[in-house]
Amino acid sequence: MPLLPSLRTALPTATIWDAAELASRDPGFDARNFGASALVRPRDVTGVAALVRFCAEHGVSLVAQGGRTGLAGGAATSADQVICDLGGLTQIEEIDPFARVGIVQAGTTLGALQEAAAAHGLEPGIDLAARGSATIGGMVSTNAGGIMAFRNGTMRHRVLGLEAVLPDGRVFSDLTRVLKTSAGYDLKHLFIGAEGTLGIVTRVAVRLDPVAGASATALVGVPDAAGAQRIVRHFLGSTSARLTAAEILWRNFARLMQRALNYAPGQLPLDAPCLLVLGLGADTMETARGMLEDGLAAIWEEAGILDGLVASSDAQAAAMWRLREETVEIEHAHPMAPSFDVSVPGGALDAYVARIEAGLKALDAAYAPYVYGHLADGNLHISINCDGPVSHERHEAIEGVLYEGLREAGGSFSAEHGVGLEKREAYERHADPVKRDLAKAIKELIDPGNVMNPGKVVG
Amino acid sequence: MPLLPSLRTALPTATIWDAAELASRDPGFDARNFGASALVRPRDVTGVAALVRFCAEHGVSLVAQGGRTGLAGGAATSADQVICDLGGLTQIEEIDPFARVGIVQAGTTLGALQEAAAAHGLEPGIDLAARGSATIGGMVSTNAGGIMAFRNGTMRHRVLGLEAVLPDGRVFSDLTRVLKTSAGYDLKHLFIGAEGTLGIVTRVAVRLDPVAGASATALVGVPDAAGAQRIVRHFLGSTSARLTAAEILWRNFARLMQRALNYAPGQLPLDAPCLLVLGLGADTMETARGMLEDGLAAIWEEAGILDGLVASSDAQAAAMWRLREETVEIEHAHPMAPSFDVSVPGGALDAYVARIEAGLKALDAAYAPYVYGHLADGNLHISINCDGPVSHERHEAIEGVLYEGLREAGGSFSAEHGVGLEKREAYERHADPVKRDLAKAIKELIDPGNVMNPGKVVG
Repeated sequence: MPLLPSLRTALPTATIWDAAELASRDPGFDARNFGASALVRPRDVTGVAALVRFCAEHGVSLVAQGGRTGLAGGAATSADQVICDLGGLTQIEEIDPFARVGIVQAGTTLGALQEAAAAHGLEPGIDLAARGSATIGGMVSTNAGGIMAFRNGTMRHRVLGLEAVLPDGRVFSDLTRVLKTSAGYDLKHLFIGAEGTLGIVTRVAVRLDPVAGASATALVGVPDAAGAQRIVRHFLGSTSARLTAAEILWRNFARLMQRALNYAPGQLPLDAPCLLVLGLGADTMETARGMLEDGLAAIWEEAGILDGLVASSDAQAAAMWRLREETVEIEHAHPMAPSFDVSVPGGALDAYVARIEAGLKALDAAYAPYVYGHLADGNLHISINCDGPVSHERHEAIEGVLYEGLREAGGSFSAEHGVGLEKREAYERHADPVKRDLAKAIKELIDPGNVMNPGKVVG
Repeated sequence: MPLLPSLRTALPTATIWDAAELASRDPGFDARNFGASALVRPRDVTGVAALVRFCAEHGVSLVAQGGRTGLAGGAATSADQVICDLGGLTQIEEIDPFARVGIVQAGTTLGALQEAAAAHGLEPGIDLAARGSATIGGMVSTNAGGIMAFRNGTMRHRVLGLEAVLPDGRVFSDLTRVLKTSAGYDLKHLFIGAEGTLGIVTRVAVRLDPVAGASATALVGVPDAAGAQRIVRHFLGSTSARLTAAEILWRNFARLMQRALNYAPGQLPLDAPCLLVLGLGADTMETARGMLEDGLAAIWEEAGILDGLVASSDAQAAAMWRLREETVEIEHAHPMAPSFDVSVPGGALDAYVARIEAGLKALDAAYAPYVYGHLADGNLHISINCDGPVSHERHEAIEGVLYEGLREAGGSFSAEHGVGLEKREAYERHADPVKRDLAKAIKELIDPGNVMNPGKVVG
């Protein structure tokens, strides 16, 4: 197959790996990421455009990859495909402290942008555990969320402008760095969340916000999500506090984590039906802790708080956060456990969790899901307490329980991980048919040769 | 012409006005709004879909109208067109205080939503002077902005989900009421800011936020925008204050308003090069005023503040706000003065204003523009101090001065009023050509018969 020599001739300055080289490298979060016959790492947007034109001319399909931390198989590749690795486009081109915007190349990691912004007392307003590897381009392409989305929005809301290489090699350039623009269809939103199926994002203007001086942490036991929501609403309603996190853990998950991490909470009611990890920002740590304590005291009865503790040291706060964030413990307990990522409207959380617990038990009496997530935006992560992968039929049945009625209620079967390969079938079953028709037509319009990440999202 | 009888037969429950009736009614902010041969006001989304199908079948084009407060001619009509008036769809279907979302029909006014949300201590997070007439559907269609956008985003960022009737009469239904959804292309963004050229928005899920307990106001004189930005940055950087407004007035505008309103400021430096109207929210008015005073004192020297005053009464605050908001005084002084609406990146504001003042003076030595707007997001409104309309050639020359280099710098020639008819030529000249090509292709894909608001935005 003459693909590699042709690629090397067409892209003399790019780094190129063949299948053998790929096989010897770490493919990231998904073993299928390096199934392609070649990886090309252009040095700049011109190189990306040249690669796209090469692939379009040769009828080879192209899969863009950033940090390879995706959880839905959106970057999986097969032997007939070429990877466009954005690892050569890592420049932070500008941090503008007045406009509060950062201009970065797509391969920049979230961590690198956070660091550069912090030098100006700013932050990108989005954070997630994979910050050291996840790239801005990848986060744009999956519309990443994380723990601060309830306040700052998802990646879509942090993008002021972007540049993308279209499937025909042209460059769509909308590097707006202002919030307000009503200058025709805002087509950058087509590329945000498209998982590389409509073009390859090469440069992004990201909105930045001032960092809080200090952030205090509390762990609180409550009887249900409604109680936890009363706490959240109390802090959101106060202008003097800046709620920075509100993560909820249902009992099964909290118990697993407590055992796995050997967490010794003292008097804390870790056996409460729900635990809430709260973050509150203020100008100083003393103020933040005081506000957390006062706020919890004020809402104690109304929220039915069982017990709660404001961390008095960084180490204590870190231990509380590990209880929420070391989700790899699920993988240790149940390798490849079937896992899901839904958004449930705020008012329906308790009813939803009760319904799926019963529905899953009806499928298998041993099923008792681990449920945790981002309370203030209703994004729940759900893992089944069994080893995976389960059969296709069983997976479908679980999805049936989890996704039933979710769209009609205003929720989403895919909150922040994207559709990729994993949720292709769910997309066909649960997305609005008119929306799917329109999405397909737009894919065919923009990528008639199906060059860009075929088989993902829209098929 | 048998159009009206056919319409009445096809839409028996809709209110229908003929051209004579239209001529006797108030057309709103633009005299051209009622140039159509008929206005149809369906009672529900089914009626809107029936009207759309009727128009598609009869080859009649359709212009959606909400509050008719648009400033760019997006709702202008001609005798061969029919108006789809959303005034029959005004229900506030739900306010969900837990999910913090309101579900409203498109014809609901902003004011009505604000009132319904306030009953739950919530607000839609967007505000503008036309709140009593402007509708949510219209605000979605123009991606409206206003004074709180720097903090809460524009209308695009407030929309969680929407329903729209497509040009073929099908209903696109994405009434998501959660923030996080990464479930395929987020096509609702095509309809946001499309000014009714791709479909008619019929229902919207709007994000709501808790209202601040009280808001204090200050008027501050500074030597330049950079100084004003230091003040903004100071308040944004504090977690204990919630900056709710930061409006800037350059001297020419401030002088005009001061004269027109007979504003007696006491010792205030109304002749400062720039005035800043600040709003700061806190749990109580006393706290808010104290924070404004302390914050201004802390940044006084660094920002080069010339003088400043925190309003000590509601009446004093209202007088300060009138200085910024009674922009109708420009119209009184210079009927139909050429007016513009640009976004300028934060770091470039002073240089931009200096450049356009010089450029306009070169066109006409008497030109001294009125410049004011939303400091914290860089959205400036600019009116020329002459009666309008000016000749087409002169208008072009003024646009040339105002828009030159703006896109390249990351700004926008159209910030929050939309493109409509008024900025069609500017769009052709100043929008990215690849973006324009793609927008045109999408318009042809979704509306091949050019039924929806032809001649606007994309042509």
